[in-house]
Amino acid sequence: MLTAIDLERLIADTEQEMLGVIERAEDERTRELYQMVRYHMGLDSDAPRGKRMRPLIGLLAYQSIAGDHARALPGAAAVEMGHNFSLVHDDIEDLGTERRHRPALWTVWGTAQAINTGDTLFTLSRMALYRLQEEGFDDTRILRLMRLYDETCLALCEGQFMDIWTSEHDEWQSVDYYFDLIGRKTASLIAGSAQAGAILATDDEAVIEAYRRFGWALGQAFQLNDDLLGIWGDEATTGKETSDIATRKKTLPLIYALAETTGRDRERLQAILAQGQTEPSPAEITEVLAILDRVGAREYTRERAREHRNEALAQLESVGMVDGASMERLSDVVKGVIRA
Amino acid sequence: MLTAIDLERLIADTEQEMLGVIERAEDERTRELYQMVRYHMGLDSDAPRGKRMRPLIGLLAYQSIAGDHARALPGAAAVEMGHNFSLVHDDIEDLGTERRHRPALWTVWGTAQAINTGDTLFTLSRMALYRLQEEGFDDTRILRLMRLYDETCLALCEGQFMDIWTSEHDEWQSVDYYFDLIGRKTASLIAGSAQAGAILATDDEAVIEAYRRFGWALGQAFQLNDDLLGIWGDEATTGKETSDIATRKKTLPLIYALAETTGRDRERLQAILAQGQTEPSPAEITEVLAILDRVGAREYTRERAREHRNEALAQLESVGMVDGASMERLSDVVKGVIRA
Repeated sequence: MLTAIDLERLIADTEQEMLGVIERAEDERTRELYQMVRYHMGLDSDAPRGKRMRPLIGLLAYQSIAGDHARALPGAAAVEMGHNFSLVHDDIEDLGTERRHRPALWTVWGTAQAINTGDTLFTLSRMALYRLQEEGFDDTRILRLMRLYDETCLALCEGQFMDIWTSEHDEWQSVDYYFDLIGRKTASLIAGSAQAGAILATDDEAVIEAYRRFGWALGQAFQLNDDLLGIWGDEATTGKETSDIATRKKTLPLIYALAETTGRDRERLQAILAQGQTEPSPAEITEVLAILDRVGAREYTRERAREHRNEALAQLESVGMVDGASMERLSDVVKGVIRA
Repeated sequence: MLTAIDLERLIADTEQEMLGVIERAEDERTRELYQMVRYHMGLDSDAPRGKRMRPLIGLLAYQSIAGDHARALPGAAAVEMGHNFSLVHDDIEDLGTERRHRPALWTVWGTAQAINTGDTLFTLSRMALYRLQEEGFDDTRILRLMRLYDETCLALCEGQFMDIWTSEHDEWQSVDYYFDLIGRKTASLIAGSAQAGAILATDDEAVIEAYRRFGWALGQAFQLNDDLLGIWGDEATTGKETSDIATRKKTLPLIYALAETTGRDRERLQAILAQGQTEPSPAEITEVLAILDRVGAREYTRERAREHRNEALAQLESVGMVDGASMERLSDVVKGVIRA
């Protein structure tokens, strides 16, 4: 069975691959540009890194079919760099000042350089894919992967558009709208990672589709888990991080509650969540928690998360692959996602 | 010979192609996102459009070899959408409030949506290229084109990095640095357009290379012409637009003058250009114009522009193609570029 050490190896190899993409691009006059790229990616010295979940999923999907991960590394680098391009721009868009316990890129180098560094990272993420040619994949397969990648990036931008829209408007969208939003913004890239791993490893369309569905369900479960943690997680309840209720973040529990409550609960919820710029008081937060409790918003969100988790596991089981250890690890990732 | 009306036809076909890319992507929930894309591109109703120089060059290059332009339209759409993605972000980066006589996108929809719309446009520009498959081009050729496109976009980002850097720092770079900067920021995309048109039309590597060199030289001449107009053009001299001297924009005439003047002229130039935030007075602008005159900065810039123009024409002449009318038109484009 694959151990935690093996996962560290996959992460280290992905980071080596990404550094290679950067090193091939930089020259004397663009040193600082690529220094910004390294800084944001946590590739400078001992900087804190992200979880690298997306490349791990892609590499494990590939390995579960092909038995080894090495040839899929260019795809893993692409998806992680693409994910990070969106984070650079997200931080500017929502004025996020911290990323992985460090100052966000734009707070250090300014907005102009940060926007352009995001664009650079976006471009590098595609450049990463051309190394698949060196790995002996044929042009048709690479082009299919690129198209999947571009379609995924478009969904990402569309999800981001919907997210900014809801954050800038007072209206609360429907539960259905919300699932569409997180599907585009979060699930699509995770689905794309798993599907890409499979595309590189097999021509069996049923298997490729199963991996896509696996990643999609995992992505939805992942986001719903985040929603639960944002209100009922340790950091939110102990005040270590601001609760999503305080910021009026339009996550599933609140959207569901607004749609389902009636009478006095509904009135109070609308009043507290519509107060414009002032943050709800601690008393109001307690009140909202009680309303969420009465309408069953936590159970509802949990139940949807569980459904998606089970769907992800079912998709994994539907494909009987050669490398059982990778499959175990993928299923560990899924099980690890639901902790709230 | 191709007439102005024929060029209008190429532009109209390119715009139709771009609208097709947008229409295939949008749905009910992303209507406003794609409305922003149309707004910036001037594709909404009778909006003012850009010159569409880059797609025209690509289509004419293709047509000069292949005899017709239709099959190259996806490439033309890609290059124009890519160019426009960079304009959306440029306007945010340098706080430009107007674009083609309309309010810049970010001033209408805000910075967050504008950054994301730029990312969307960047992604759409790649999506445009997949229609080359429908036009019957094989995957190897399409992948080659994509790689050229990505490499070009990377150069664009690098040039933008250098440009922001020089605008945010007091140091004046060398003439050599400047040519590198405009090469990446301006010439690379024009070279890429011409080269892409040739790649789609022929397997003759010498011809493809000649078109690349043609576009590169044209791009350099185009930028130098802009530099001349920014100081000595009608709009700058009559005050209709702010002179590049007033904004201390680091274009070739000033960079050259700073490198070549000596004694009192040098001292005065350094003093006026280093004054930090206050704009040079009309008297100081007159003084700088006199210094530029004495050091021959205008002639130097003109001479370099002419060299590049002649190089572009020589590259065109080096390829004897079937469609003489398209060649004529390309050469008209080059001659039209030098007007200062």
